[in-house]
Amino acid sequence: VTGPCAGLAGSGAAASLCSGPAAPSLAMEELLSRSVPPLPPYETREKAPPPAELRSAEFMRSYRALEAGPPRAELLARLARDFGVDHGRVAEFSAKVLQAREQQREPGALLQAEDRLRYYLSPRYRGLFQHLGRLEGGLRFLMELRGDLVEALAARHAEGPHVREMNGTLKSMLSEWFSTGFLNLERVTWQSPCEVLQKISDSEAVHPVRNWIDMKRRVGSYRRCYFFAHCAIPREPLIVLHVALTNEISSSIQAIVKEVPPLETEDMNKITTAIFYSISLTQQGLQGVELGTHLIKRVVKELQGEFPQIKVFSSLSPIPGFTKWLIGLLSSQTKEQGRNELFTDAECKEISEITGDPAAEKLKRLLTNNEWPPKL
Amino acid sequence: VTGPCAGLAGSGAAASLCSGPAAPSLAMEELLSRSVPPLPPYETREKAPPPAELRSAEFMRSYRALEAGPPRAELLARLARDFGVDHGRVAEFSAKVLQAREQQREPGALLQAEDRLRYYLSPRYRGLFQHLGRLEGGLRFLMELRGDLVEALAARHAEGPHVREMNGTLKSMLSEWFSTGFLNLERVTWQSPCEVLQKISDSEAVHPVRNWIDMKRRVGSYRRCYFFAHCAIPREPLIVLHVALTNEISSSIQAIVKEVPPLETEDMNKITTAIFYSISLTQQGLQGVELGTHLIKRVVKELQGEFPQIKVFSSLSPIPGFTKWLIGLLSSQTKEQGRNELFTDAECKEISEITGDPAAEKLKRLLTNNEWPPKL
Amino acid sequence: VTGPCAGLAGSGAAASLCSGPAAPSLAMEELLSRSVPPLPPYETREKAPPPAELRSAEFMRSYRALEAGPPRAELLARLARDFGVDHGRVAEFSAKVLQAREQQREPGALLQAEDRLRYYLSPRYRGLFQHLGRLEGGLRFLMELRGDLVEALAARHAEGPHVREMNGTLKSMLSEWFSTGFLNLERVTWQSPCEVLQKISDSEAVHPVRNWIDMKRRVGSYRRCYFFAHCAIPREPLIVLHVALTNEISSSIQAIVKEVPPLETEDMNKITTAIFYSISLTQQGLQGVELGTHLIKRVVKELQGEFPQIKVFSSLSPIPGFTKWLIGLLSSQTKEQGRNELFTDAECKEISEITGDPAAEKLKRLLTNNEWPPKL
Amino acid sequence: VTGPCAGLAGSGAAASLCSGPAAPSLAMEELLSRSVPPLPPYETREKAPPPAELRSAEFMRSYRALEAGPPRAELLARLARDFGVDHGRVAEFSAKVLQAREQQREPGALLQAEDRLRYYLSPRYRGLFQHLGRLEGGLRFLMELRGDLVEALAARHAEGPHVREMNGTLKSMLSEWFSTGFLNLERVTWQSPCEVLQKISDSEAVHPVRNWIDMKRRVGSYRRCYFFAHCAIPREPLIVLHVALTNEISSSIQAIVKEVPPLETEDMNKITTAIFYSISLTQQGLQGVELGTHLIKRVVKELQGEFPQIKVFSSLSPIPGFTKWLIGLLSSQTKEQGRNELFTDAECKEISEITGDPAAEKLKRLLTNNEWPPKL
Repeated sequence: VTGPCAGLAGSGAAASLCSGPAAPSLAMEELLSRSVPPLPPYETREKAPPPAELRSAEFMRSYRALEAGPPRAELLARLARDFGVDHGRVAEFSAKVLQAREQQREPGALLQAEDRLRYYLSPRYRGLFQHLGRLEGGLRFLMELRGDLVEALAARHAEGPHVREMNGTLKSMLSEWFSTGFLNLERVTWQSPCEVLQKISDSEAVHPVRNWIDMKRRVGSYRRCYFFAHCAIPREPLIVLHVALTNEISSSIQAIVKEVPPLETEDMNKITTAIFYSISLTQQGLQGVELGTHLIKRVVKELQGEFPQIKVFSSLSPIPGFTKWLIGLLSSQTKEQGRNELFTDAECKEISEITGDPAAEKLKRLLTNNEWPPKL
Repeated sequence: VTGPCAGLAGSGAAASLCSGPAAPSLAMEELLSRSVPPLPPYETREKAPPPAELRSAEFMRSYRALEAGPPRAELLARLARDFGVDHGRVAEFSAKVLQAREQQREPGALLQAEDRLRYYLSPRYRGLFQHLGRLEGGLRFLMELRGDLVEALAARHAEGPHVREMNGTLKSMLSEWFSTGFLNLERVTWQSPCEVLQKISDSEAVHPVRNWIDMKRRVGSYRRCYFFAHCAIPREPLIVLHVALTNEISSSIQAIVKEVPPLETEDMNKITTAIFYSISLTQQGLQGVELGTHLIKRVVKELQGEFPQIKVFSSLSPIPGFTKWLIGLLSSQTKEQGRNELFTDAECKEISEITGDPAAEKLKRLLTNNEWPPKL
Repeated sequence: VTGPCAGLAGSGAAASLCSGPAAPSLAMEELLSRSVPPLPPYETREKAPPPAELRSAEFMRSYRALEAGPPRAELLARLARDFGVDHGRVAEFSAKVLQAREQQREPGALLQAEDRLRYYLSPRYRGLFQHLGRLEGGLRFLMELRGDLVEALAARHAEGPHVREMNGTLKSMLSEWFSTGFLNLERVTWQSPCEVLQKISDSEAVHPVRNWIDMKRRVGSYRRCYFFAHCAIPREPLIVLHVALTNEISSSIQAIVKEVPPLETEDMNKITTAIFYSISLTQQGLQGVELGTHLIKRVVKELQGEFPQIKVFSSLSPIPGFTKWLIGLLSSQTKEQGRNELFTDAECKEISEITGDPAAEKLKRLLTNNEWPPKL
Repeated sequence: VTGPCAGLAGSGAAASLCSGPAAPSLAMEELLSRSVPPLPPYETREKAPPPAELRSAEFMRSYRALEAGPPRAELLARLARDFGVDHGRVAEFSAKVLQAREQQREPGALLQAEDRLRYYLSPRYRGLFQHLGRLEGGLRFLMELRGDLVEALAARHAEGPHVREMNGTLKSMLSEWFSTGFLNLERVTWQSPCEVLQKISDSEAVHPVRNWIDMKRRVGSYRRCYFFAHCAIPREPLIVLHVALTNEISSSIQAIVKEVPPLETEDMNKITTAIFYSISLTQQGLQGVELGTHLIKRVVKELQGEFPQIKVFSSLSPIPGFTKWLIGLLSSQTKEQGRNELFTDAECKEISEITGDPAAEKLKRLLTNNEWPPKL
């Protein structure tokens, strides 16, 4: 199955999106027309009928029934293109603002002209997003939808200025809604729900969690693990920070991730340094929403309260995905035997002599089995 | 003590606002200049330095140190007037939008021109409000500040289009932040914290709570009391709804408020009707933010889940403040013996004959001692 | 209505207890026979059938349907008299123990003879109490039943060595079950459930709570209120302790109970002394179970943790009921004008001269309106 | 290191138990003398000084510092032997009871004689256990101590009638304290704390949990997992019950433990049968305390509430350890080739012909790799 209908099988709600070759487009258009509320005239905006909850709910269901990837990207692109700003109105009221300014009428007149212009500069899809945000589970849905949008832009399944503008609008709406005023700092321990620990384990991008013993250690003594959760979506880690409590700045991340911290009770006197050794955004839909620095600041405050003696706060700055990228590069080079842009011939030779293996092969193996630094 | 400095005694934070006759204005100006973040140029808006948390916190402290009433109203009026939109920029970019449209360049150019215009249409105080919203306790502060603003407008301590515009901006920001997606429905029972019950008792505008026995009854059997709380401000009732569960639509509110519902366990078979007999907004700062209809809808859903047999949902629509207004009118008439616009002479005479008292006097007494309908 | 059947009207479960003049005794006997499990022979005690849950539940219902006072006292007296120890068996196995000791057989034989004797020394009603304790709500029921028993003994509605023995058995069982290992210390604040605050208010024996403002003050700043709750009966205050945090040992309880402590935040530097000014057992069924000293010890530990600077822990030892007794005495004297054992004639005269009232009258009024020390 | 001192290194509290060859006995004796409270005379038992909390706490520490196994067993044996019943007193008061009965004095006299006898029949170590039970963490400690005692009896590290009697006393005390009135039923889900899930996983005796995916499945849809926790030791599973919700009585446990239940939401219509497929006591110290049948009854009630349509409650009765025993038997037979008590020669031959392997070998392999029923 291909095309925007793949994955809709069995979904009653979205069935209409997939009734024939030409149908998807038509069905999508109908769905969007029904879901996106019209912009009422400025004058009667306060008296506009209440949001049609059922319509927004239908959009949510239909969207989720669409397969991830191109089908959703297509819907989002249409929404961005066909339900944005009414440029005619914007031009009309831009002219009015200029006119009001030139006529130098009383301030109220100018302010109102500006307000009307501001009103019409709001894209229609903003209304849809607002209605969705009010539904039960709506905030989470918008976070997921933005995740799809970010991915679609990256994969070029959706492009162009309209899509980018919608992405910006959504990012700024999420920034308002995921403002620090709404975020709760939560500490993860072995007493936390398994579901939370599993999510954190799954999302660990920098230093993958190998197993549950590993996870238990990362929330055990001489370690801290915190996350931000939105007050309306409790227990859902949005961004996660791992901290090691040590008595020196570690020279190597491996010492932190691999070595077993003592299981005994923490000795306050041995803790002088806090090392932020890993931070992961678990929700791609929140990309660009400032969460990381807020989380670090908040955790610093938390730790200062618990350990007034900590004087050094440090971070090990890893490059997430570096290993993966390097393995990919090594793989492609292994295939195309001739090319080797990573090492000089002399280096290759030297490595092979020491390890008894071709350089790229050896390196690839070391990186793959997660045993770095290697026990040669 | 009068003037904007009344109430600042002993407040170090706000002391600078009150050092002399001319000082307040100057001090206020300085506070505002420090607190309201400048609008960075559109091009570098993403790279703008992080919000100065200390500045926003200082504003919060200084504002709270100001006495309620005119002093706060003056500060708010200045904020509205001096830190709004840069009209020059708006005009400049309005012209650019018109130009882009006329030149019919690729869509990206027009969209960007519009976005730049949108950006400059945002008043500077919006930035302050956003920063405040991120502080701990910031949301609650903004709610209080808006409460002051609403009151200042009503009392005409602050007026004019700028103030009205700021009021609108704040209302729309609060509407985003107090969207139903962030509101939790909570039921009040005798197991709820005393603090919550006291707040609800204090806020009851329609049918004042007489004492704790009265309050216990309103959350006891055959009664329900619900409120919306914001997920970031737990246990703070924003808007409260009282419900009576009966077997008929009451012809009189008194039957509900005064009569003692049986203390025994509720008999499901006797419950066929839910009467919403009182709704009170406890936070004036949320005036105009659509909460009431959402609360009623949400409670209907809740009750339908608990009592599927309820077929009638009704509301007794009282006119809050009507009694108070009527007593005031009667008082003024009692003083100016001659004037009587409420009853005809014949009516007055008739009432006096039945009750043995002058009509206005009798009516006033009945209304005052809360014993309506009167036991003649 | 009098006799053991008063209060049974409409109670199906207990209806059989009340069908005629002679019936109650018969019905009670039947109920007890059904409810009190027989003591299985020592040899097969481990294989005894599981407790008849329904029987114990029936006893609970029937007991509760009985009116408080004499009817319950009668049932308890019967239970104590007819379902105690089998004296024949006890004698039989006492003899066996003596015999085993004289024969100087291997230690196992003596130990077993003693164990058998121990077994038969357990009164049969103990089995009923054990079964009741296993029911949902059973622990609370036993606490109430013991409360009735204590009251019945005090009022002489039930007397004699059997009743006293049962009282001792029940007290020792409750002592095991209400051991400190099962008690949680809970602090009462204005955030506690209204139900808890009302219970504490109702149980305050020493310094009656006058109203809710009074209550709010007793859990506010410079005050602490703690209680013990059983882990299986959460939020039910068993014994309550009120503490005042001051900077000196108060010379008068009135200063603590009447004077308004500052509402502001507590100033740690002003707190050097903790005064336990009131302690109340809320459950009469726990009389004689050591709770008071444990509670005070536990609270001292708690306060030492919160206020390391507190050096003085003091208690004001009031005589509960003293005021009531004094008012009663004064009343009787007022009636019988001639007799006056409280003051000499000279004292009476002196008091009258100062206050302008007869001495006893004046004193009575002062004590009654709770305005002591009087504002002369 | 051997002897009762092994494992005491570095433990200050217990250091005195281990200062030389003869010392342990002496040190143990001293510890016991200090810790076990003397039995005050019957007449003054109510006025006995309050329990020496520090002494009990010292015992707890010293005991825990002892190595598990023989050292603890020795201490327990001494406690049982030297701090039991005063046989002289028991004999004395047994005689008094006989005398009272013969003299036929008023009932009070006999009751008191019996009560005195009952009092002296209580072993002294009972007092220690009672004091321990009052400490913070004391209940858990007693549970562990009984676990050691049960093990010591099984391993014959401690034996004899005194030890057995102490075991019985402790069991009966724990039965009072772990009565169903104090137990809370808790359901385990993927939202439960990891610590709880790990404990349950570790304690699963019947069908070992293979990994976390396995565990997630056992608490997921069409499965239930419940445990009893004591109200004073929250979140500590004492006994665990696993349930499968199916539409038929499974003919094989493997279908339940191995097959993956659908991850989708449970379909009420497919659930007609509840199969209790595993029950595990996690605390050996509670052996003999009736928990299993209570747990099953309670869960049946719970499930009847949630699924009124369930008509069949069934249990698969596995024999824990059967597989292990069988593998052991097969191993010993494989070694001693000649002997084979499991199968007749004809059976062996038949099996070999079908499977192509020697019967015992094949069977052993099937049982070992957990793949039963085998996919031949």
